[in-house]
Amino acid sequence: MTADKTIRVGIIGASGYTGADVIRLAARHPGIELSTLVAKAHAGQALSDVFPHLGQLGNLKLIDVADCDFDALDAVICGLPHGAAHEIIAGLPKDLRVIDMSADFRLRDAAVYASWYGGAHGAPELLGEAVYGLSEHYAREIAGARLVACPGCYPTATLLALLPLASDGLIDATDIIIDAKSGVSGAGRSVKQGTLFAEVGEGVAPYAVAAHRHAPEIEQELSRAIGSQIVVNFTPHLVPMSRGELVTCYVRLAVKTSADDLRAALTASYRSSPFVQVAAEGKMPATQHVRGSNGCVIAVFADRLPGRAIVIAAIDNLVKGSAGQALQNFNLMFGFAEETGLEQLPLFP
Amino acid sequence: MTADKTIRVGIIGASGYTGADVIRLAARHPGIELSTLVAKAHAGQALSDVFPHLGQLGNLKLIDVADCDFDALDAVICGLPHGAAHEIIAGLPKDLRVIDMSADFRLRDAAVYASWYGGAHGAPELLGEAVYGLSEHYAREIAGARLVACPGCYPTATLLALLPLASDGLIDATDIIIDAKSGVSGAGRSVKQGTLFAEVGEGVAPYAVAAHRHAPEIEQELSRAIGSQIVVNFTPHLVPMSRGELVTCYVRLAVKTSADDLRAALTASYRSSPFVQVAAEGKMPATQHVRGSNGCVIAVFADRLPGRAIVIAAIDNLVKGSAGQALQNFNLMFGFAEETGLEQLPLFP
Amino acid sequence: MTADKTIRVGIIGASGYTGADVIRLAARHPGIELSTLVAKAHAGQALSDVFPHLGQLGNLKLIDVADCDFDALDAVICGLPHGAAHEIIAGLPKDLRVIDMSADFRLRDAAVYASWYGGAHGAPELLGEAVYGLSEHYAREIAGARLVACPGCYPTATLLALLPLASDGLIDATDIIIDAKSGVSGAGRSVKQGTLFAEVGEGVAPYAVAAHRHAPEIEQELSRAIGSQIVVNFTPHLVPMSRGELVTCYVRLAVKTSADDLRAALTASYRSSPFVQVAAEGKMPATQHVRGSNGCVIAVFADRLPGRAIVIAAIDNLVKGSAGQALQNFNLMFGFAEETGLEQLPLFP
Amino acid sequence: MTADKTIRVGIIGASGYTGADVIRLAARHPGIELSTLVAKAHAGQALSDVFPHLGQLGNLKLIDVADCDFDALDAVICGLPHGAAHEIIAGLPKDLRVIDMSADFRLRDAAVYASWYGGAHGAPELLGEAVYGLSEHYAREIAGARLVACPGCYPTATLLALLPLASDGLIDATDIIIDAKSGVSGAGRSVKQGTLFAEVGEGVAPYAVAAHRHAPEIEQELSRAIGSQIVVNFTPHLVPMSRGELVTCYVRLAVKTSADDLRAALTASYRSSPFVQVAAEGKMPATQHVRGSNGCVIAVFADRLPGRAIVIAAIDNLVKGSAGQALQNFNLMFGFAEETGLEQLPLFP
Repeated sequence: MTADKTIRVGIIGASGYTGADVIRLAARHPGIELSTLVAKAHAGQALSDVFPHLGQLGNLKLIDVADCDFDALDAVICGLPHGAAHEIIAGLPKDLRVIDMSADFRLRDAAVYASWYGGAHGAPELLGEAVYGLSEHYAREIAGARLVACPGCYPTATLLALLPLASDGLIDATDIIIDAKSGVSGAGRSVKQGTLFAEVGEGVAPYAVAAHRHAPEIEQELSRAIGSQIVVNFTPHLVPMSRGELVTCYVRLAVKTSADDLRAALTASYRSSPFVQVAAEGKMPATQHVRGSNGCVIAVFADRLPGRAIVIAAIDNLVKGSAGQALQNFNLMFGFAEETGLEQLPLFP
Repeated sequence: MTADKTIRVGIIGASGYTGADVIRLAARHPGIELSTLVAKAHAGQALSDVFPHLGQLGNLKLIDVADCDFDALDAVICGLPHGAAHEIIAGLPKDLRVIDMSADFRLRDAAVYASWYGGAHGAPELLGEAVYGLSEHYAREIAGARLVACPGCYPTATLLALLPLASDGLIDATDIIIDAKSGVSGAGRSVKQGTLFAEVGEGVAPYAVAAHRHAPEIEQELSRAIGSQIVVNFTPHLVPMSRGELVTCYVRLAVKTSADDLRAALTASYRSSPFVQVAAEGKMPATQHVRGSNGCVIAVFADRLPGRAIVIAAIDNLVKGSAGQALQNFNLMFGFAEETGLEQLPLFP
Repeated sequence: MTADKTIRVGIIGASGYTGADVIRLAARHPGIELSTLVAKAHAGQALSDVFPHLGQLGNLKLIDVADCDFDALDAVICGLPHGAAHEIIAGLPKDLRVIDMSADFRLRDAAVYASWYGGAHGAPELLGEAVYGLSEHYAREIAGARLVACPGCYPTATLLALLPLASDGLIDATDIIIDAKSGVSGAGRSVKQGTLFAEVGEGVAPYAVAAHRHAPEIEQELSRAIGSQIVVNFTPHLVPMSRGELVTCYVRLAVKTSADDLRAALTASYRSSPFVQVAAEGKMPATQHVRGSNGCVIAVFADRLPGRAIVIAAIDNLVKGSAGQALQNFNLMFGFAEETGLEQLPLFP
Repeated sequence: MTADKTIRVGIIGASGYTGADVIRLAARHPGIELSTLVAKAHAGQALSDVFPHLGQLGNLKLIDVADCDFDALDAVICGLPHGAAHEIIAGLPKDLRVIDMSADFRLRDAAVYASWYGGAHGAPELLGEAVYGLSEHYAREIAGARLVACPGCYPTATLLALLPLASDGLIDATDIIIDAKSGVSGAGRSVKQGTLFAEVGEGVAPYAVAAHRHAPEIEQELSRAIGSQIVVNFTPHLVPMSRGELVTCYVRLAVKTSADDLRAALTASYRSSPFVQVAAEGKMPATQHVRGSNGCVIAVFADRLPGRAIVIAAIDNLVKGSAGQALQNFNLMFGFAEETGLEQLPLFP
């Protein structure tokens, strides 16, 4: 767990949930010096006032981005909302390595971005160099990248489950239905009536049906893997829990392929991954089993409908779905072992 | 709300959650005299000791079935687990009208029952007279029935959403995927590690994938509607809430049919129903919006996948999914207005 | 349950949680015509857009107070926040009967109001006629009142538990400690970071320690009962649930008084109350047992500390703690049986 | 974080929640070789079948205590229920160091044990050597002990809050009221109706009022600190969350003592503690802020009742209240830095 080097890391957007989770993990990373915390609206406040659970870290202050000395940093991890990220990132020194957790550099095509995010991209010139940070699948590109765009939480879980299967032609990529369930922290810490405790407690509901911005991201990567443009059904639901995300994927099998073949392919694909576990036949995945950790559990089931299978993946949306994967990418970029700082076991119950 | 007659009703299985919810509703039904409460394991106890929330009802006692004077009853509502119900019901007086909330008389074919429930049916001679109690669709048969088998909670939500569409040939019944989410009360009040608070809290997980006993029930009714045997994908998930159930159905449209057509067909089908509401385009259904009530909300969405649609239904699993539908059937059988005793509005938040 | 008269009732503040709960209950009250729903910020919207769970009520519209024809009403129930209520109520026709659920008319002394609510009272001339609407204790005054100030949720539970004991001199009113626990709906529907699901889920915390505005209200009524001014310890906590409130009161017994004496006194005090139940010795009260209902359960325990006892009361903060008590007061004011429209049994689980 | 020695540790009672949390933490402790996992009822099973969240640890097996080679161990951590622990511990090799998380060796007097735990103590001969493992207060004794009895979760939080105050004579130890709130995991993983999700969800309730077994433990340590036998009021409540514990202590101040004095004394007492934080004036503690960590936050408030104060402490019941404190004691016993293996920051949200 020791490291023989120290990377100076700044966090931009330190007052959101993903920012806080990066701090939680980075503060215990042996190769990170957490020197700068930027949070516009809270500039001047103590971190412990904004996030009392981080009080143990002592007297860290939040500062405005204008007061940030980027020359004193080797890397920044950016936890801003989409739309805010591209502007700030475009203004950073060109030799500063950037790990962005927003949606701003995930879509490779500025036109697709504009159509889904309601406005022109603010830094299209950077799209070419941005690497899609799905750690298990693009490790080599990430290692060499200056700008890494971490995948959305839903695309992370979905692509970990389906990308190897689509790439290998084991499923029909034109007939994919993804029923997703997420905890409430995915909506962030900004106040909205829809995420008040009394609104979401003791209930489950779909949202953004056929209109969620993570759909084009999933489509982009699956299309790339198979070499032709596809569309998916992606239907998210809000579940009364703070953390956790489960995607239940309904897929059509390629000819002469079985659910067992899918499981074998996934097992082979993730054999050397420290984080992705493929469940044994019949075992049920659960978000409870990855809570607080960078783990992902994937399970495959035969469907009673002939020629079909069910592939289910569980992650913690704030860790593997955001802050943890950001640090995993940091490790790839700076030559640390992939699991450095991410060794924590899940918190259950 | 007044009634000019009084029906003497007994409840068998009064110590379970569905039994308690029947009591909650029946105690305020103006045409019901709740004269007998049977609960084998708790015989001799006060109802208020087993369910303190019903303490307002005064000194009601739970008795053993052996001590029950069935001749003093006009009807029984049975909330026993499957397997226990068929034996007791077979022994009841033949002129006693029975509303069964168990699974024992839902499947019309004893062989299908045996294959899914792990043992021969205990009263196959009654299967012929049992009427499947999906109130909105079989009201006439229910009105004349002696023995009504109330549908399971998942089949209730699913069939309310899909039966009119399959009957009218608006969807391809051979390509139906049902992703279901339920609160924990569906598992009943008997103790199991899997339903402890600390196990299911703050998490979501699938269970009984491709193996849930509500699948054959859904298949039976849809097959009947279209005139040929079909199989469905039915995949349930456990959500950290006590009540509520949401089914997200992914369907393939018939040729020249749109999501709007489905919505119009459902709206027409339930025009005169006091309980089923079809949501306007774009409105999201939620279990929060039916909590504690006998309501069902159905919404239809166009899919981004061409030729497909998404049909979502929300109910309270203990009310419309069990106790409420039982009372609705009671009203049909005894000539009360369908909503008698079921007027309560949902409890939100 | 039938009524031979119909009272035309308007609700001001119909877009908050207490407003919605008044609508839920009033819509099923046989003597109420719910003719006017006022909600400033949502004027022009359909009620079902603001509260989809009330969609069954059909096409009710929310209007601005300026568009309200008060002459067409016999009574208004007001669910505005404190500070907003006194201004509007001061402008109402003087013959309109008003049931106010805000804090604005609870404190009999305008100076006390000013010191706790941070500003002068907006309608001190009405304080003299306002009746404190603790239904079980001031029924006669309420029946004759034009303006009833419904107690806060915490004072309701606390005073139901302690007022008879203080009045009878069975406890030392100068040594009362009230540890209170509330669900999140008590904070209302306006958006605040502190009531987001992810903030309050899976945790418990105190708030407003030694500074909560319900303390002076409790002190006012207890002081009045014993004839001298006292101060209480009142310490509220936020619990991860939407509804429910529990107050655990630690009291010093008068000389020669036992916990059994307290229980007997409470039992006698509430003998004819349809809503307040005093638990048998050893039975634990729980908010689960009153959820959604107008009930209150009170239990008394001997303390291991000599000369002391523990008195615990459970209510639903939105019903008995607000909307239900408002309707109970309405019934007293307009001559309906006290439980009219409030017959619903608790929803459990 | 590295250690230059490795201690071979066995865990007895590995299938309970506290056992699992010891494994979670110990598996990442650099000085622990987790060689033996004992779980009677699950002997022969894989750990990952009993606790899927620990699947990352690979192929660990649970064994029966009869198959355990205690000579190959340097220490055992015991997570059995009370009553089961004393028998097994009495049979262990006399040179094996034992950290017991049960209640069996907490009470120094076998007669007190018998009166509260309903039966004679099974190994009274060991009581003399057992050290009460409240890490912050008995570090020296723990370091030299063979048998350490870790405090109960409630006594841990309460004594951290009150022991320094009672020792210094700053509060009147004869007038202490402790209102405690706990998450459901405190009840363990064995199945009981009372801890089913649907029973405890969306509600709060007291339990074991004036009869909880943690009362004599608190009394023992406070009595010892002040040199005379006292009794306390200890009133626990069950809150719908899996982890977390908050104790709200109502205390009478010594003459000429203020709430500020209490805060200052606590701050001084825990100045060098890596885990206990005393909150600044006005800051609210919350179990959310210590979730999953070994931290304890203590806050002091002036009471509006003259001469009184409120002292509130928050912990994670499974960590500082059990498994974490066990490892902290392990560190003290084997010469590791106190925070080794316990560096994890709290998980929020």
